[in-house]
Amino acid sequence: MITAGIVGGTGYTGIELLRLLAQHPEVHIHAITSRKEAGQPVAALFPSLRGHIDMAFSDPAQTSLDQCDLVFFATPNGIAMEQARNLIQAGVRIIDLAADFRIKDVSLWEKWYGMPHACPELVAEAVYGLPEVHRNAIASARVLANPGCYPTAVQLGFLPLVEAGVIDPNHLIADAKSGVSGAGRKTETQLLFAEAGDNFKAYGVPGHRHLPEISQGLSQAAGQAVGLTFVPHLVPMIRGIHATLYGQVLRTEVDIQALFEARYANEPFVDVLPPGSHPDTRSVRASNLCRIAVHRPQGGDTVVVL
Amino acid sequence: MITAGIVGGTGYTGIELLRLLAQHPEVHIHAITSRKEAGQPVAALFPSLRGHIDMAFSDPAQTSLDQCDLVFFATPNGIAMEQARNLIQAGVRIIDLAADFRIKDVSLWEKWYGMPHACPELVAEAVYGLPEVHRNAIASARVLANPGCYPTAVQLGFLPLVEAGVIDPNHLIADAKSGVSGAGRKTETQLLFAEAGDNFKAYGVPGHRHLPEISQGLSQAAGQAVGLTFVPHLVPMIRGIHATLYGQVLRTEVDIQALFEARYANEPFVDVLPPGSHPDTRSVRASNLCRIAVHRPQGGDTVVVL
Amino acid sequence: MITAGIVGGTGYTGIELLRLLAQHPEVHIHAITSRKEAGQPVAALFPSLRGHIDMAFSDPAQTSLDQCDLVFFATPNGIAMEQARNLIQAGVRIIDLAADFRIKDVSLWEKWYGMPHACPELVAEAVYGLPEVHRNAIASARVLANPGCYPTAVQLGFLPLVEAGVIDPNHLIADAKSGVSGAGRKTETQLLFAEAGDNFKAYGVPGHRHLPEISQGLSQAAGQAVGLTFVPHLVPMIRGIHATLYGQVLRTEVDIQALFEARYANEPFVDVLPPGSHPDTRSVRASNLCRIAVHRPQGGDTVVVL
Amino acid sequence: MITAGIVGGTGYTGIELLRLLAQHPEVHIHAITSRKEAGQPVAALFPSLRGHIDMAFSDPAQTSLDQCDLVFFATPNGIAMEQARNLIQAGVRIIDLAADFRIKDVSLWEKWYGMPHACPELVAEAVYGLPEVHRNAIASARVLANPGCYPTAVQLGFLPLVEAGVIDPNHLIADAKSGVSGAGRKTETQLLFAEAGDNFKAYGVPGHRHLPEISQGLSQAAGQAVGLTFVPHLVPMIRGIHATLYGQVLRTEVDIQALFEARYANEPFVDVLPPGSHPDTRSVRASNLCRIAVHRPQGGDTVVVL
Repeated sequence: MITAGIVGGTGYTGIELLRLLAQHPEVHIHAITSRKEAGQPVAALFPSLRGHIDMAFSDPAQTSLDQCDLVFFATPNGIAMEQARNLIQAGVRIIDLAADFRIKDVSLWEKWYGMPHACPELVAEAVYGLPEVHRNAIASARVLANPGCYPTAVQLGFLPLVEAGVIDPNHLIADAKSGVSGAGRKTETQLLFAEAGDNFKAYGVPGHRHLPEISQGLSQAAGQAVGLTFVPHLVPMIRGIHATLYGQVLRTEVDIQALFEARYANEPFVDVLPPGSHPDTRSVRASNLCRIAVHRPQGGDTVVVL
Repeated sequence: MITAGIVGGTGYTGIELLRLLAQHPEVHIHAITSRKEAGQPVAALFPSLRGHIDMAFSDPAQTSLDQCDLVFFATPNGIAMEQARNLIQAGVRIIDLAADFRIKDVSLWEKWYGMPHACPELVAEAVYGLPEVHRNAIASARVLANPGCYPTAVQLGFLPLVEAGVIDPNHLIADAKSGVSGAGRKTETQLLFAEAGDNFKAYGVPGHRHLPEISQGLSQAAGQAVGLTFVPHLVPMIRGIHATLYGQVLRTEVDIQALFEARYANEPFVDVLPPGSHPDTRSVRASNLCRIAVHRPQGGDTVVVL
Repeated sequence: MITAGIVGGTGYTGIELLRLLAQHPEVHIHAITSRKEAGQPVAALFPSLRGHIDMAFSDPAQTSLDQCDLVFFATPNGIAMEQARNLIQAGVRIIDLAADFRIKDVSLWEKWYGMPHACPELVAEAVYGLPEVHRNAIASARVLANPGCYPTAVQLGFLPLVEAGVIDPNHLIADAKSGVSGAGRKTETQLLFAEAGDNFKAYGVPGHRHLPEISQGLSQAAGQAVGLTFVPHLVPMIRGIHATLYGQVLRTEVDIQALFEARYANEPFVDVLPPGSHPDTRSVRASNLCRIAVHRPQGGDTVVVL
Repeated sequence: MITAGIVGGTGYTGIELLRLLAQHPEVHIHAITSRKEAGQPVAALFPSLRGHIDMAFSDPAQTSLDQCDLVFFATPNGIAMEQARNLIQAGVRIIDLAADFRIKDVSLWEKWYGMPHACPELVAEAVYGLPEVHRNAIASARVLANPGCYPTAVQLGFLPLVEAGVIDPNHLIADAKSGVSGAGRKTETQLLFAEAGDNFKAYGVPGHRHLPEISQGLSQAAGQAVGLTFVPHLVPMIRGIHATLYGQVLRTEVDIQALFEARYANEPFVDVLPPGSHPDTRSVRASNLCRIAVHRPQGGDTVVVL
């Protein structure tokens, strides 16, 4: 039985984490903290958890998280790095659902996230929690950097191709589409139903924070720096990410369908669909599954990964 | 040609007003003010108006609205009443899209809106801008109180019945459903796409500000105080209101379909549908039309107005 | 371990049933039949079941359902009654998700469903599967009539009030709102995204098949025939039902909140919310829970159940 | 005054055409035909047109379309080509909203549309109705082929770049996203609200009928055959198309923003947005405007057109 704490549980990652932990037979939730909602029952904020979670949010100042085996940070960027050092010293392992420990190059992180890093000494040892790449290291990590949403989708789709050198790593294109919950439970005008509903648009084309994270992972896989164009879009749906990836095929003799099937044969969270498929986001809703389909339209030199 | 000013044009009533005025052949827009957006082109905030409106928002402090023939307030409740006196004295007519002048009983207004009224002396002369009831007075009004969204729907549906004494005025039930834009362009968590989408709920059942406004209008029409239960709901759509109204029939000999057709025969903004119809909100989207259908299910003593 | 068969599993009730049975530790699925999809893997039709269900749809003509302990009918109205007699004679218990055995008055059923009943002799013994009313009988039933969607929502909301004689049974009003999946997986124009999306409307006001089913249940509970006005509406959401119920209070001394809490104290599928609540459909999505809130607006004589 | 006829007006192109013609001061609608709905008032099918169109659908067999100056075909593919010859001989001009006259290579058309062409002799003279390319020819055309939805979006976005030789024409990528109404008013399961709602997916990746149409237009503009990868997606919104286009820049010295502004300076239906913009589909809803933004992320060699 693992004793787990959660820092900041009022956003969408927090509630989803709670939903999973609440039904996990090997986890005991020690505390869930929120400065703003301290004292408030969790189920009052998230009615879907009524009857599943009896806890209240607790005041961070009065919560001894160092009694936990494991602490999750379901917080905005910049919080986990403030508290990581003390927890690690107390022997607590941490999983940051935000971005604080995802980028190995601290100065690059500071540029994209616009703040100095408060705990650079833990960045190097932090394990990037993509099980399809770092499964063994994850099992023993003290600091786990949970991958971003777009980076998970884009890396899983490109990995078999760049690892095998099948496509030109200098001209990767990732056209990604996200449901609105991806932006978090922030009260921004553009996330209102009356703004995001019945509408479609790209955003962040000049540069999005997930770009360096994706590039880092793919460069590692390619063994060289990759050239990536990444364009995110906002879809009028609540949940789900769809990435449409384009690569220029260098090795036309490779059977791409077989390549993907082999790469993910033993991966329980990746499902390679039969040839000719088009995955829909709904089919993986509320699961931790990524469904992938591979195409080479008209047998040309462009591979399309969905 | 009417010279019009707009105070506060950054919400949904403001942009809709702009859309209508921009194509109105008899209106010249003198200024549109916004403290927060002063200097910003209107079309930068509302891209759909690019090419239709060339103006920028102007600073209220530097805008001489007293040169207008008419000033619209597309502001939150409580703003129009602060500025009405001076404009009226300068000979400017005003139309308040908010609630400041809708309720004749000032103390009742103050109770529901939670603030003292800043201009009670103009409340009595203010005309409630429902043309199906006050068309002539509207034409000459100095202060026009634009009806609320729910009040428009509920009153138009009940008016023929209570005016003619066909239903019991003590047990009126209005089950109303609104699109999310009805709440305005406010950044509240419950209005987020990821909260309001794929969801349905009632709200404000213990009491909603539109209740006294509706009761005032229907009591006037009935010639006695009415008893009204009003339950609003939030629909995962952007625009539109659907009111489902229930009344107990007192005069079973009345042909209710004919009653509605006669009442609204000369009203250009009300369309009484043929017997057996079910209006859908989409069919009046972006128009100022109200479509009404009347039913007496199984010929019983309950009339249902849609 | 129960061996279960499913007749017709290509609609929304079928897939939901499969989702539940596939993870049920005490159920073995023997077969799922579909004339149209025979031979097709279930997961090809419903990708969300890939990895959870390995079966293919089987041809009804070649499937021996009499080897099952239990057969579910996830079929259109009129199918279960054709096959019930033989299965019952073979010792198989049946659960009809459609309407064939819901109405005790066979001629009433025939009037609303527009066909002669093929198995009237089993109607009397069929148990109406609302556990909050018939739990014990359900446990031993040979023929179980699964309640309709609207009838479940409306009955659960009215039951405590009519059982206790708290409201006038002659003037019950049920204003119900359903997600689009409630209509089934039929290809009707009005169910298209481009028709049902961003739209709201009532339908079936002159008469809906669920009216006699609701009336039957409430009349039983009231000990007298009830007078019910039932107006269903189509909401632009996928799943969920919200019923807003109105009743005229006869016994004003009764604490309605306490009445509901007592009535459903031991019911695991009904959750009575604290006073002042407004349940949202999302909070029960994909569960078999019904959340209820009770109001008496302004302390008047109308009770509102959500 | 132009006398216009409409063949087949019960789909989404038909109703939109009717909406535009009904308010056009220079058009008289002579007849709108529908075999299936003959005799039915147009407004009964499309309630939003109540009060704007008083006509009924007429039986094609009894409608003398040869009295029209102009006949629109708002029909499925394959209908206009059957009737074009006779109408042209009668001196009537035709505009086909479907695909019959869009592709100059008749055998290519027959391959993608799966039927023999019934009127190949008019294909050559047919004018492809994209005003930004063929404005003058449109004005005098006898047969006008209205461009497809995706082709309009993709061509307008790529045209300035391929005309000026700024990007590599061999590796064009068009990632396009369409609202559900783009599929027409067909009752297909995948277009149901409960299927298309809260979901996102690609479709037709192996090959979509709009591919040859786009390639034809871009090849003409480039003066050579282009290599295009075209991936359409279905967005859970009703209307609107968003194309995200990717090209590899060959001439890095060209100011792409200036190029687009110059190309479309006099085009009333194309609005080039300021640098750094992201157009949203909502801002052009129900208009015939195409808004375009141009990006070169991180100053690299990939141009992104939205």
